[in-house]
Formats: sequence, structure tokens, C-alpha cells
Amino acid sequence: MTANGLNTPLLDQVNTPEDMKKFSDAQLRQLADELRQETISVVSQTGGHLGAGLGVVELTTAIHAVFDTPKDRLIWDVSHQCYPHKILTGRRDLMLTLRQAGGLSGFTKRSESAFDPFGAAHSSTSISAALGFSVARDLGGAPEHGLGDAIAVIGDGALSAGMAYEAMNNAGHLGKRLIVILNDNEMSIAPPVGAMSSYLSKLYAGEPFQELKAAAKGAVSLLPHPFQDGAKRAKDMLKHMTVGGTLFEQLGFSYVGPIDGHDMDQLLNVLRTVKDRATGPMLIHAITQKGKGYAPAEASDDKYHGVAKFDVISGKQKKTPSNAPSYTKVFAQSLIKHAEQDDKVVAVTAAMPDGTGLDLFAERFPSRTFDVGIAEQHAVTFCAGMAAGGLKPVCALYSTFLQRGYDQVVHDVALQRLPVRFAIDRAGLVGADGATHAGSFDIAFLANLPDMVVMAAADEAELVHMVATSLSINDRPSAFRFPRGAGVGIDLPETGEVLEIGKGRIVQSGARVAILSFGARLQEVQKAAEKLESRGLRPTIADARFAKPLDRDMILDLAANHEALITIEEGSVGGFGSHVMQFLADEGALDRGLKIRSMVFPDTFIDQDTPEKMYASAGMCAPQIETKVLETLGISQIAKRG
Amino acid sequence: MTANGLNTPLLDQVNTPEDMKKFSDAQLRQLADELRQETISVVSQTGGHLGAGLGVVELTTAIHAVFDTPKDRLIWDVSHQCYPHKILTGRRDLMLTLRQAGGLSGFTKRSESAFDPFGAAHSSTSISAALGFSVARDLGGAPEHGLGDAIAVIGDGALSAGMAYEAMNNAGHLGKRLIVILNDNEMSIAPPVGAMSSYLSKLYAGEPFQELKAAAKGAVSLLPHPFQDGAKRAKDMLKHMTVGGTLFEQLGFSYVGPIDGHDMDQLLNVLRTVKDRATGPMLIHAITQKGKGYAPAEASDDKYHGVAKFDVISGKQKKTPSNAPSYTKVFAQSLIKHAEQDDKVVAVTAAMPDGTGLDLFAERFPSRTFDVGIAEQHAVTFCAGMAAGGLKPVCALYSTFLQRGYDQVVHDVALQRLPVRFAIDRAGLVGADGATHAGSFDIAFLANLPDMVVMAAADEAELVHMVATSLSINDRPSAFRFPRGAGVGIDLPETGEVLEIGKGRIVQSGARVAILSFGARLQEVQKAAEKLESRGLRPTIADARFAKPLDRDMILDLAANHEALITIEEGSVGGFGSHVMQFLADEGALDRGLKIRSMVFPDTFIDQDTPEKMYASAGMCAPQIETKVLETLGISQIAKRG
Repeated sequence: MTANGLNTPLLDQVNTPEDMKKFSDAQLRQLADELRQETISVVSQTGGHLGAGLGVVELTTAIHAVFDTPKDRLIWDVSHQCYPHKILTGRRDLMLTLRQAGGLSGFTKRSESAFDPFGAAHSSTSISAALGFSVARDLGGAPEHGLGDAIAVIGDGALSAGMAYEAMNNAGHLGKRLIVILNDNEMSIAPPVGAMSSYLSKLYAGEPFQELKAAAKGAVSLLPHPFQDGAKRAKDMLKHMTVGGTLFEQLGFSYVGPIDGHDMDQLLNVLRTVKDRATGPMLIHAITQKGKGYAPAEASDDKYHGVAKFDVISGKQKKTPSNAPSYTKVFAQSLIKHAEQDDKVVAVTAAMPDGTGLDLFAERFPSRTFDVGIAEQHAVTFCAGMAAGGLKPVCALYSTFLQRGYDQVVHDVALQRLPVRFAIDRAGLVGADGATHAGSFDIAFLANLPDMVVMAAADEAELVHMVATSLSINDRPSAFRFPRGAGVGIDLPETGEVLEIGKGRIVQSGARVAILSFGARLQEVQKAAEKLESRGLRPTIADARFAKPLDRDMILDLAANHEALITIEEGSVGGFGSHVMQFLADEGALDRGLKIRSMVFPDTFIDQDTPEKMYASAGMCAPQIETKVLETLGISQIAKRG
Repeated sequence: MTANGLNTPLLDQVNTPEDMKKFSDAQLRQLADELRQETISVVSQTGGHLGAGLGVVELTTAIHAVFDTPKDRLIWDVSHQCYPHKILTGRRDLMLTLRQAGGLSGFTKRSESAFDPFGAAHSSTSISAALGFSVARDLGGAPEHGLGDAIAVIGDGALSAGMAYEAMNNAGHLGKRLIVILNDNEMSIAPPVGAMSSYLSKLYAGEPFQELKAAAKGAVSLLPHPFQDGAKRAKDMLKHMTVGGTLFEQLGFSYVGPIDGHDMDQLLNVLRTVKDRATGPMLIHAITQKGKGYAPAEASDDKYHGVAKFDVISGKQKKTPSNAPSYTKVFAQSLIKHAEQDDKVVAVTAAMPDGTGLDLFAERFPSRTFDVGIAEQHAVTFCAGMAAGGLKPVCALYSTFLQRGYDQVVHDVALQRLPVRFAIDRAGLVGADGATHAGSFDIAFLANLPDMVVMAAADEAELVHMVATSLSINDRPSAFRFPRGAGVGIDLPETGEVLEIGKGRIVQSGARVAILSFGARLQEVQKAAEKLESRGLRPTIADARFAKPLDRDMILDLAANHEALITIEEGSVGGFGSHVMQFLADEGALDRGLKIRSMVFPDTFIDQDTPEKMYASAGMCAPQIETKVLETLGISQIAKRG
């Protein structure tokens, strides 16, 4: 179908999984091979997540061959491994639109297909959702939802999250039929950490694994035949396949495995048996290899987790070089400099050492770097404990994932005024990962916490100062946020300056209108101001630096000396702009009139696109700032001209 | 010391745990008995948490006898069991101030004592914090923090929370010396649920437990003596005491137990051995009985979890009867009525069936009630799955605990527009439980989520309507919040009315000032209005009902037709008032001046007191509303008279 020069005779016959039902097992094996080639071809042209998808090609094929999707609900955890699934479920034609504006999501998405019954992107939600579907099935849900099985496919990395454990604990208790497939590739985004990971390795390491593999293969001969006394034989088989006393069994699951997740015969046999015979919650432990079947991915450290477009033959990725270092790297290098001077500085990541730059920190300070797994709740309180113990912990998380540790920020950090430093990466809109990864809410949910210091970096030099500032604050928690991607390319200071807490800076003085920026929209504000100045209107521009505490004097000055005051931030309502309005209202500064506006994200989740276009769709780029200024001042004819 | 008529000769000698070091084991046993009597006596006079404290009297005594607190950091999970700990750590004189204004907290609190190295109130944080202290110790923390052990005492109920698992997973991986004592009383606030609970029961059920008890007792003879070859003997002993292959061992902990948590000899032996010999993370599994040693508590279903003042002899509690049903009960009864008509309605609680009123729902609909354990993350996404499966899930949580599931609300519910209903109890300030239990942030963190419907009940009749309204919303998520405690006593409607989404109501029309209330402050607003009217100023009063979507027409009308507009809500900045200001600013309605004020919680955590006094300290009672109106209108001389 796709003009990619591949020979995919079986895949060409598959529009939906229904079309796979006619295939023999041998044909399903071939279909998986074709699916792998198609996946490689697609991602070479689009970029995106590759290694995870290649690891589940056989699993995807086997599940759709054995189960009746979409009546049976297949839920991919995180779902960055869903590209082969999308190819098999009617979306092959659209694969080249992946992660682009208006195109297919890089994750499962309910609005995209009936074959995506539950969307994901954050980790470890699948068992909870699948249990919800199981209960809905047993209680009769809506008839149109059918009465199928719920199947969650979850990686070993995702099992480090407490939420997966909470779901297993509940599922084991309820005892409802539920199928969880543990896709164990010893690899999430980074190699997984934690005791669970070691435990899983033990389950299949060495000789026992060989025995168990044999036992799983033995399942073939034990398979219940419709004309045999199936029930007893299946029971015997499951007994044979089961390792006694695994952690999963202790939590109330029947455990099957480990099986070879690339051996189609094993997969089909086990899935068919489970489908026929499972009564309660069942965990199938499949060993897979991330990047399987594509040599450059297999050879790569990160197994081509997330890739740019690449050349299929060489595996060489076509990354666009950036002129400026990324904010992430500036943060990491800055933190390293401080840690060299201060041995109390320690850093915590929740399974994102690369994404947060802490891989660099870990190289330099391995014993002072803690990768806690996908465990933001623990990450935050662990930091609180270290702070109470006299260390200077820096908790480096993406804004969207900090949501996972919110109660811990409130209850363990803020309430106790413990000096935990939150380095919040991916603040604002993030591009191809779309709405699920947007960092929209952190200003609002942090700035209303008593005693918290909340900063946002206007550029990478400011970030250097904020790292220094945050590390200097020892009597209360602090946070600094910065965007995804490259900085603006300005010179970096040799050492960070400790900023005065709660003081902003005037970037330029002007008249009539003041634009008060919090964060990296400052560049767009400056662009807008240039255009306005060319028309004779020179706005005052201020960089707030702090959403909390506010620079009250500066804000009162701006309000008193301008006809209009416009705040702008990369976040939702309830954040910086709301704090400014609340303050000015309390001061009576709005009583006699101030054209105040707060530019925040619109009240909608913004779909994937380039970050620039997402910001344009959010109404936060230079032309829109210009328009907002003109409209606010009532100079609408110029606005329409602009 | 306390004038309670008890004979407590040993306890009278204990000002700090240091004073216990001179006691023999037999004296420690007696000390525990005295401590139990003292605890009962105190709580009979103050009310508070009793059963949990009685369950850990021996444990508390043994830990302080064996370890060197406060250099060794003892961290009580949840910490409602900390009363005996407070009595032993220099706070005996203050116990009668417990949970009162200016008095001792009912929980551990860093600002209260060096013996409280980490405060708590929400569950399952202790292992994370203790691991933080362990790391701080090993990395040299601050010298003043000493170099002691970190000991977490965590209940079996708290182990259902994912965060505890995340911490164990990390601790097992790091391998640092860390002592976790599992206080297993088969009872959190309600009987615990989940597979973990069944698993723990199996660990000590029947014969094996007897054997293990014997083994633990055997520890006495195996105890390393300073003059013996201690190392080997201790190793032998630990080996004897350890059950192979427990879930905890699979997570990298050494497991000791189960032991009898009321047998002082066992406790002292095991703790001494662990103190001398532990190298990595260690879990001591102690079986205790909630309410132990006080017959009325032992006989009670809830083991006197939380009690009013009571008569020590009879156990009879002196509860003040209320004139009105509690909001909680009104919610539950309302929900039951709907569920009788609609079999798709299901309800979820996270280990708080009593607190949320779902115990009533469960009596009527056992198969449609789900207690998932202390597992808010799972609770939310489980509801999302059920909603996607066609059910109508109601997720009943306290506001403060909903913080635990915030990312799931964003990522699994709001982003997918799934019709999960959040029934948010304990919204606003809650009284004796203090700052840790305040429901201050939910309006802010929910109302900025696209497509969410956010309601607050002004009284219990409104709550009935909001239950009906929420259940009628099938295309997106909705939330309704209501306060702790008794309603205002108005008549309840026979059936709830489905409110028009995003429409408020005018309670009374007036002039000059409009007070726009969101939630149950309406009563205080009305009281303030009466006072104002008696002075010739009749305010307009509106009940917003919805923070999202806003009643834009009503708000514009109020702004256009009044000199001043004052919003009030039981929550922090960033919530309802911020949304109103943002809207009015965008509409240009502030351009020519409006005396707008937003009455929100002050930027501080508010300590325990009666709810009324907490609201007074937050500046949100009738006299303060009256003052705010007068000040805003510039009638300050009357305000000062008022």
C-alpha cells in the first residue's frame, strides 16, 4: 500500500484484524515479518518511537490474531509501542502523517480509532483502565461496548510505578478475568532500575528460564482440543507453565511465563489457552527485545527509543543540528558546576536520565544521582527526606510528570517548608508528543502553595541564574521551569548569579502598555515590541522571573504608569497572570480602571504540531501579542492591518 | 504528671527516651502498660485517634528503648498512631492540648519536636522519607543531623498505596541500611482491601505463624552477646527468623517476622538484633491489634479509630448531636437514590468507605461499590476505564487526597473527556485534622482543565442537585465539592434537579456591591448581608454554582450593574475568583474600573482549630465579609465601627 518498495503480500490483505483470521500460524509469522519491515520503513520517514514498536511486532500480531479486537479491548501502556498496532488496525495509509499536525498521534487515542479503547502516553495506567473495562463488562456496561476481554500490555519499566502496583493489588482482590501481558525487555526509555527489575531478571535468568521456555513450548502438546477433556488439560497446562510463588501470584494473579515474546508459536499457544481458560486475573510474562529485528536499533544503547528520520540501510538519523544548546543541557551543566563546589547537591530523576540531562550529572557524580524509576510520588518525598536530612536535592522532572507527585509536593515538601528544588523541564507546549506531554498546569498548581518559590527562565542564561538561585534557597522549596528544546543562543554566564527572590527585571522601558512576561515567551514579546515600535508604540517589557513571590513593587509601578498591562506565560489560567490580577485587585489598582489582560493557554488541549505552531494556535506568538496590545489599547484598525 | 489519677511511676521518670535506657526489660514492659493507660486517659479527655495508638504502645516503647532517637530518625506513617510516641518524647504535659488551637498536632510535626523528623498525615510516605534520611546519612548530610538510623513504621493498609511500593522498589535497589517496621493490624481506617492484604494474612495465618512465633522467640537464645562470636550467631538467627521468598524479599528487603507486636521480649530482641546487624533494607513484620488493651476499643468495629471524648470506664463517647445531616450522608443517600434508578451508577472509594459515605452505598449495592485501598492514582484511572466501558463511575475522595490522583485526572480523564464524576468531600478547611487535611487546592487544579465541569454546593440541598447534575453529564468529566460536617439544616428536595450547566443563581438583588459566592460560604455571605442591610446597604448575592463553565452572562451583569464585585470561595488563589477575573479582564470589563476583589484562602497553611475559627483566621466569616464590602466601597469608618 505505501509506496515504500516493500514486498508485503500478507500485510496488504489486512485492513482490520478481522482480515487476519484466515491466516495460518505460518502466515502469521510471515505477517509479523512484513509488519516489522513496514514499521521500520514508516519510522524512517516520519521519525518517532521505533525500538518499542519493533519489540512487540510478534506480540501485536498474535494478540490481534487470537483476540477479537475491538470488542476485546487492547490497552497499550504508554503506547509509544503502538505503531505496528496502528498499521494492523486500519491506519496503515495514514502512518506517514504520524506525529504531525492533523496526522496520527504517536500514541493510542480514543478519538482516532475504535481499536484504541484507552489512550495513553504517561506510563503505568493500562492495568487500572483494563480493570475498569473488565468491571464494566461484568456489570453490563453499555451494550454497544460489547462484552469482550480487557488486555493490558505493560512494559517492565512501567511496573516501577506505584499506580501499576495499586491496580494489580485491586485486580488480584477483585478476581475478575483480566489479561495483563508483561512486555519485559529490560528497558524502558533508559535501562530500568529498582528491585522489581532485578526480580524480573531473576525470573528468567539462567537455567530456570530454559526450563520454563521448554515448559511453555510444552504447552503446544497440552493445548486443549475441542474434542478432548479440555478443562482438566488446560488446568494441568497452566499449572505446568506457572512458576510458583512469584510476586504476581502473591498479588492474586495467575502467572504464565516467561515466554519468548518473539516466538510466534509460543505466543499464539499461550494467548489461545489464556483466552479459552482464564477465569481471574492473569499475567503473561513475555520476554522481548527492544529494537528487535533491526540491526542498527539492536546495536544502539537506547535501542532507537525515539528517533529522527533515518536511512534504513545505514540506520543513520537525520537530526537537524541546533545552533544553541538545549535548556536541558544548560540545566545539567549548570547543576554539575554547583555540585563540584557543594557536595550536598544531589539529583533525582524518575526514569528519565537522558530527558532531564541527569545522565550527564550521573557520569560526574554517580553516587549523588538517583534514578528512582517511574515513581514521581516517591521521587518527591524521597527528596523531602533527603532535604530533611541536610542534603540539597534537585528533583528533575518534566512538568507533565510532576503532576504525578502533586500531593507529595503539597504534603511532604511545601507543608514542611523543606528546601527541595524542582527543576521542571518541558514546561509549556512540547511539539510532536502532543497534548499528553504539555506542561500547562505547573505554574497554577505550584504558585498557590504557601512558601513555594516559583521561577521561569526567559532564556538559557536566566536558567543558569535560576539554578544558582534555587540552590541558594535553603529555607523553603523552590521550582524553576524551562521549555523543551534549544535555547535562544545567547551567551551563557560563566557562573550563575543568585537572583534576588521575588524581583523581576525591566527589559525595556516604554509607554502606554507594559508587557509582563513570565518565562520563555519573552523572545516573542520582544519581537512583537519591535513591530510595535516600528509603528511608533514602544511597550515597556518586564521579565517577572518569579511567579511567586511576586515583584509587588514592579507590578504596582507597571500598573500605575501604563494604560494597559498584559501578562504572558506558558501555562493555563490560574497561574502567574491570576496571581498578578489577584494582587492588583487586592491593592485596589483595578478600581479606577486598568486595561489588564492575561495571555494564557486557551481552555483546550492542544494537539501535536511543531512547538511554534502549537504556540501560534494557543495565540502566543509575536503577531498575536502585537494584536493583543493593539486591541487592548483600542487601536484595532492597526491590528487588522498587522 | 497529668492529674488523671493514674499510677504511672515509671512513665513519670521519662521526660525523653534517654530516660528509658536505665530500665530493665521487665520495667519496659511495665512502662508500656503505663503508657497505654496514659494514652487512654488523654484521649478520653481530648478525643482523637485512639485505636491506632493503642496498637503500637509496645512498639513505641521498644523502638525508643532500643534506638537512639532523635539521632535515629523514627518516622511514623500517617502518624495518627503517634500519641504514645509524643508522651514518651517530652510532650506528655501538653497532651491535653491535642488537636486544639495552639496545641499539639494529632500527627507528627517537624516544627513541634526534634523527635518528629518527618511529619505526616497522608498515608504511605514514610518509606520514601526514611530512604531519604538513609541516603543523607550515607552522603554525610548536615552534621547536626547526626548519623543515625532511619526507621519507618508503616501499617498494612498504607502498603496498598503505590507510593510505598515505589519506595520499597527503590530501597531494595539501593541496598542502603534502612529499617521498615510493618505494623500489621489487618486494619487501616476500614478493614484493608486488596491482594496485598490477603497476602499478609497468609504470611501469619495458621500453623506457619505459630512456628514463626516460636522461631522469633528462639531469637532470645540466639541473641549475639558482646563476648560471643556475635556476627555468625546473628546471621544464623536472621536466617532462622526469615521466611524465604516473601514479596518483600523479592523487592530486595530482608524480612523478619512475623513477630508478635505486643510481646515486648520479641520486640526488644528483634529490634536489638536488627540494630546491631542490619546492613541493607530490612522489613520487620509485627502483628498488632488495633485498640489493644482497652476493651471497648477491642470490641468496637472500627477499634476506636477516631473518637470523641469518652468515659474511660464505659467507653461511651460524648458525641455532640448535630441538627442537620452531614454533607457526606446527604451525598451518599442522594447517590443511592440515583443508583436505584440507574444500574450503571458505580462508586469508588480509596479506603475511606465511612468517611465518604460509601459504606451506605455499599450496603445497598455491594457489587457496584469498589474500595480500591489507599490508591487514589488507580482509583481515578479505574473510574476512567469504567466510564470508557459505559458505566457511570462516581469517584468519592476527600479534596486533599484527590491531589494523589491529579495526573490521572488530567491524563486519563480530562484529556479523554471521559464522564467520571468526582465527589469531593472535605472541601475547604476541616478542623482538628489541620493543614494536612485542608481541601484548598482542588478548585484551582480542576477548573483549569479543559472540558471539566466544576461545581460547589452552597448547602446540602444544592448538593442533592449537584449529584443529579453530575450523573446527567455523560460527555465529559464533572466534579462537585462540599464541606466537612453538618449541612445548614434546610429541607432536602425529594429528588435532585438537574441544574443547567454553567448557570448560577441570584440569591438576592441589591445595589452597589455584588457578592458572588462559590460554595458553602454563602451562609456567611448572607449573614454579612443582613448586617449590611441593617445599615442601609443591600448587596446583591449570587451563588455561582459552577466555577467551570462560568455563568458569563450573570457575571457580566453583576460587573456592569455594581460598583464592586466580590467573589468568595473555600480555596486558594488560582480558582474560581481567578477565572472570574480572567474572564472579566478578557471582556474589557475591568478597563474602566471595577472594584473587584477575590476572597480566597490566605497564602499560608492554616493550623488546626475548629472549622469556624479556621475560617475566621482565613478571613472568610461574616464579619470579615462585611468589612471587605465596606472597605472595597471605601466606607471604612463604618467598617471600623462594625
